[in-house]
Order: sequence, then structure tokens, then C-alpha cells
Amino acid sequence: MRKQSGISRRFLLSTLATLLALTGLFPQLSARAQGTDPLPSWNDSKPKRAIIEFVTRVTREGGPEYVKPAERIATFDNDGTLWCEKPVPVQGAFALDRIKALTSQHPEWKETEPFKAVLEGNPEALLAFGEKGIFEILAATHSGMTTDEFAKIAADWFATARHPRFDRPYTELAYQPMLELLAYLRANGFKTFIVSGGGVEFMRVVTDKVYGIPPEQVVGSSGVTKFQMGSDGKPVLVKEPKIEFVDDGPGKPEGINRFIGLRPIFAFGNSDGDWQMLQWTAAGSGARFMGLVHHTDDEREYAYTRQRFNTLDKALGEANANGWAVVDMKRDWAQIFPRAGQGAGGRALQ
Amino acid sequence: MRKQSGISRRFLLSTLATLLALTGLFPQLSARAQGTDPLPSWNDSKPKRAIIEFVTRVTREGGPEYVKPAERIATFDNDGTLWCEKPVPVQGAFALDRIKALTSQHPEWKETEPFKAVLEGNPEALLAFGEKGIFEILAATHSGMTTDEFAKIAADWFATARHPRFDRPYTELAYQPMLELLAYLRANGFKTFIVSGGGVEFMRVVTDKVYGIPPEQVVGSSGVTKFQMGSDGKPVLVKEPKIEFVDDGPGKPEGINRFIGLRPIFAFGNSDGDWQMLQWTAAGSGARFMGLVHHTDDEREYAYTRQRFNTLDKALGEANANGWAVVDMKRDWAQIFPRAGQGAGGRALQ
Repeated sequence: MRKQSGISRRFLLSTLATLLALTGLFPQLSARAQGTDPLPSWNDSKPKRAIIEFVTRVTREGGPEYVKPAERIATFDNDGTLWCEKPVPVQGAFALDRIKALTSQHPEWKETEPFKAVLEGNPEALLAFGEKGIFEILAATHSGMTTDEFAKIAADWFATARHPRFDRPYTELAYQPMLELLAYLRANGFKTFIVSGGGVEFMRVVTDKVYGIPPEQVVGSSGVTKFQMGSDGKPVLVKEPKIEFVDDGPGKPEGINRFIGLRPIFAFGNSDGDWQMLQWTAAGSGARFMGLVHHTDDEREYAYTRQRFNTLDKALGEANANGWAVVDMKRDWAQIFPRAGQGAGGRALQ
Repeated sequence: MRKQSGISRRFLLSTLATLLALTGLFPQLSARAQGTDPLPSWNDSKPKRAIIEFVTRVTREGGPEYVKPAERIATFDNDGTLWCEKPVPVQGAFALDRIKALTSQHPEWKETEPFKAVLEGNPEALLAFGEKGIFEILAATHSGMTTDEFAKIAADWFATARHPRFDRPYTELAYQPMLELLAYLRANGFKTFIVSGGGVEFMRVVTDKVYGIPPEQVVGSSGVTKFQMGSDGKPVLVKEPKIEFVDDGPGKPEGINRFIGLRPIFAFGNSDGDWQMLQWTAAGSGARFMGLVHHTDDEREYAYTRQRFNTLDKALGEANANGWAVVDMKRDWAQIFPRAGQGAGGRALQ
């Protein structure tokens, strides 16, 4: 066949796309043809097609896989799934900054581990203290104040802290493709939840602004709070240095059961800490969508898979074996973070 | 002034009501004049007026007490506030029925307390075993199965069990005035939550049907669940005989903080177990509504105030001192339960 001109070839491809779209088999082409692509930051590769195809199936009234809106529950891990978690998770950066800020009130920290390691900027030494060290850092920075006081401390930190590499507020380092996905799901009658190992009170300070997810749709780890009467006769909730619930690994389906009480039909994670949530989602009846974000792009973000903490290993194996969606960040995302002025996402996108 | 005829007196009163309604000061009269009374089962007394006046104030855009929809959080106790809790709370009736149903599998119960007391129909003896006895009954009836199995057991029970006095399914013994209140609040942009000492998994089986409150808006007490792989390779959550969280008394504001993450602006209870929730609600800034249901009607329901368990004492004192709404069931409610065919409420009223 003779080579045709660029214009008529493009015309043929466009016609073909329109015809395919009209069959309803490729709704993403339909959306694009109409100029209403709901996921413009996603490349036109497998995960995007799988997402749109799934949403189309479960929202088609009268269709065999229709799911009524009340049961369209979508759960998302936060760190590394909705926003950047490197070089340290956002809440870790907050805790380390707080240790530095509080040192003047705790001169003894200069000689006491694990605080000494933090103040000397020695993350390797800090990690050597393991879970116990992390708990001490969290207790020192996340307890001993009321819930209202903590929310203000966290909000003040978010207003000024900047990511060391990207030099932007952490609230601008949500993934643009995931912001579009959240908005797309909500536009299709889904209720979107965060189910994260992060602290629930820390996340809630920004989740509405960043993701359009209100406080009551955030499930996370928590410390014990204690109700008591304040000196002004008004009650307060005081944050205690006691872990109440760890919303990670098997804790995620447990947290989903306790907080949401419905099994998700759509779930996204990025590490083995999300494995059980994805298994729990997969085990329900009817149509299901399980997805993983695989960090493969060290130019635009970071590249990591198997690692010391929060590794992606077993969940990736099951994803590959069972056909769960695996987002290869480098291949599948046309854009990683919102552009300046594009807005942090949530509210703006709704 | 001479006595006027009945008709013209009624006309004058009606005109006066219309004029008052037009001033916006008495919206309930306005609603009645328009035939759209949102709370028809409430008598036109103080609590009804206070509710409508509050909702009008916080929803008036541009008004000094306007609250945006995202912050219109309303929390309701369940037992004795939304539905009948006598002669025993609904979940208690369920547990006692389950003990009887399970006896064939546990012949030893006939000789073992506290089960013996249950099987002999001796509630006084049962109560003598105190919290430990209650825990044993709950553990025997609420653990050792998966969450899905438990939900089915509870649903089957609700489908057949009947209230001993009213001879109706428990799901029909929600208070009609409260069903109207829930619907009225939702129609005004509120998000309605249950915050109950009852078990969260038990309540969720019926809360959507009865109250129109979906599972994710039910906060309650819970036992520990454990994620494990079932024999068919599908994961399950197994209910363990361990208390995880008691959502009562000070636990209510703690639960609200953990599950909802926003302070309610509207809360309703009926006992001292709700006292701290009402205090927590009252302590926020801006307009607030705190209400108590006072059981004063032993003809149409039950009359009780100060009692051994779940007494209404301190909360009533604070309500009277601080002007919280106190619903006198006998005086303030024109109707208690839905009429036959009126529907259980929630869904139907939405």
C-alpha cells in the first residue's frame, strides 16, 4: 500500500477511533473524541483503559455488573499512592522538623537517642533504633497536646514546609493523575476514602484541600485520646503517647471494616502495606478493581520497588499473577505533579 | 372585646401566623402555613421550635451563624434516642436470643453462669454478674465467626424477632419524630451520624434501612477483628472475644474525633452516656444544638429517668442549666412509632 499523506492518515485514524468509540468498547477514545478525557494526565496505556472500562461497567444501569452508588466504595493508600513519600514520608518530615523546633524546650535531647540522631541529621543512626526509636519520635511530637492544638501545629507546618528536592509545599506533591482519578470516580458516584498507615489527625488537616476527601472519609493510624475538662470548663481531647490502632497491612481491611463497614470495589496502593487491602477488595463478589502505583521514574519522581521499609514485593507478585493494574509511573503517567497554578487538586477539581 | 365566631377567630389566628411567618421569625409556622411541616409528628412545643429555628439560622446564607454544608455534622445516640431500648436494648435482646439458640451446641451452659441465668429467664440473676457477665454473653454471641457470618446472623434475627410488648419487628420501633428529624436535617445539607455504645457491626445491618444512615456514618463500640486467609484462599475477618473500643461516655467524643474528625454542631442523646458527646458539641464555636430525649410516656412507650444502668441524671442537669433542648416524649411527640405501612423510615423518608 502506498504511503498516504500525514493529514489523511490522521483522518483515517480519527475515524477509526470514532467508530471504535461508538461501539462502546473503548470509552476512553469516546471521551477523547468528545474532548472530555477524564484522565488527561494518564497516557493511553493499559491502566487507564482498565480504569475507564471498569467504571463504565459498574455504572451502566441495567448492565450485568452494575453497582448501586451506595456500594461504590473506593479506598486509596496515601503515602506513595496519592502523594510523594520520598525521601521520607510527609509525616516523617513533619516529626523531624518538630523535634528540631522543640529542642529549645528539651535541651536533654542533644545527648539522648534517638533525638540526638535527628538533631545531628543522621537518618541511618535513627533507623538503627528501629520501631522503638520511631515510636519515641512520634510520641514526642504527636502527644501531650489537645487535638485542636495538634491540628494547628500541623496546619502551620504545612503552610511553610517545602519538599527538599522539588522545593514546593508538600500539599502540591500529590500526583496529578491520581487527583484526576479521584475526581473521575466521584463524578461517577463513587465515595472516595483514604486508608493509610499515616496518622488520621495529621492527614485530615490537608486531605480535603489536597484531594477533596473530607475528614470523615479518612481512615488512618491513631493514638489514644483522652476526654477531660479543660481549665476553662470546656472539654478537650488530649493526645496520649499510646498507639491505639495501626492502619497498615492486615490493619487496613480491619480499619475498613471498622470505619467504613462496606467492602471496597476499587482500591489502590503502592506497597506490601496495601497488600491485604487489595486482597480484601479482590475477595468480594462482582466487578472489582485493584491497582498498584509502581515507582519507576527517578527523573520526574523516584524509582524504588523492593526496599527496607514499605517494600513492594508480595503485592506486586499477586498483581502480576492476578491481572491487577500496575501503574508504571514512567510509562503510564504523562504528568506527575500538578503544574504551578493547576491547583493542589481536590477542591479545585471537583 | 366581644367574643367572635369560631371561624373568624381562626381566620385572625391564621392571618397572624402568616404575618409572623413572613417575618421569618417563626419558620415552623411558615412551613405549616405552606403545608410543608417537616416535623409533623412533633407537637408545636419548645423542642420543635428550637430545632427549626436552629436549622434556619445555620443554613441562612450570608447570615451571621451560617455553617457551610461540609461542617453540618449531626450525631445521634441510637438506643433510647432513635429507637426503643426497653425492656432491654435491642442488641441485648439479640444476645439473649442467640444464647438460647446456641444452647444445643453448648449443653454445659445449662450449668454455667451467666448462661444459666439467661436460659432460666432470670434477668436479675444475670445482672448480678455485672460487666463480666455481660462480656461473657457478648463474647459467646459476637465472636468466633467471620464478620460476614455475623452480619447474616444479625440480619436473620432482625427478620424474625419481635418486640415483646409492641409485637412488631425491632426495625419498626424507631421513633417517628426522630426519623423526620434525620430526614429534615439531611434535606438541609446535614450529614447524619449514629454515635452509639452499641456494636458497630450489629447496628450497620439495619441503620441504612431504618434511618437512611449508611454504614460509613455509624460509629459504635467494636471488638477486635483479625484478618486471616480462609480455607478457600479468600481472606476473612474473624471476630475475636476482645473489646477494642467502647463508644460510650467519654468514648463518644473520642470516637467522634477518630471516626468523623469534625466536631458536631448538632447532637442528640438520652442518657448520661451521651453527656460528654453533648458537652463536646456544646464547646465548639458558633451555633450549636444539644438535645435529650426524656422518656416520660409509659402509655405509648416507657417512662424512666434515673435508673441503675444508663441513667439520665447529670446530662439532664446540664441540659436544664444551659438551655439544651429536652424532649418530653409525652408532651412533645404527637406520635411515637411509625404507623403500620408508614414504613420503617430512613429510606422511605429520604
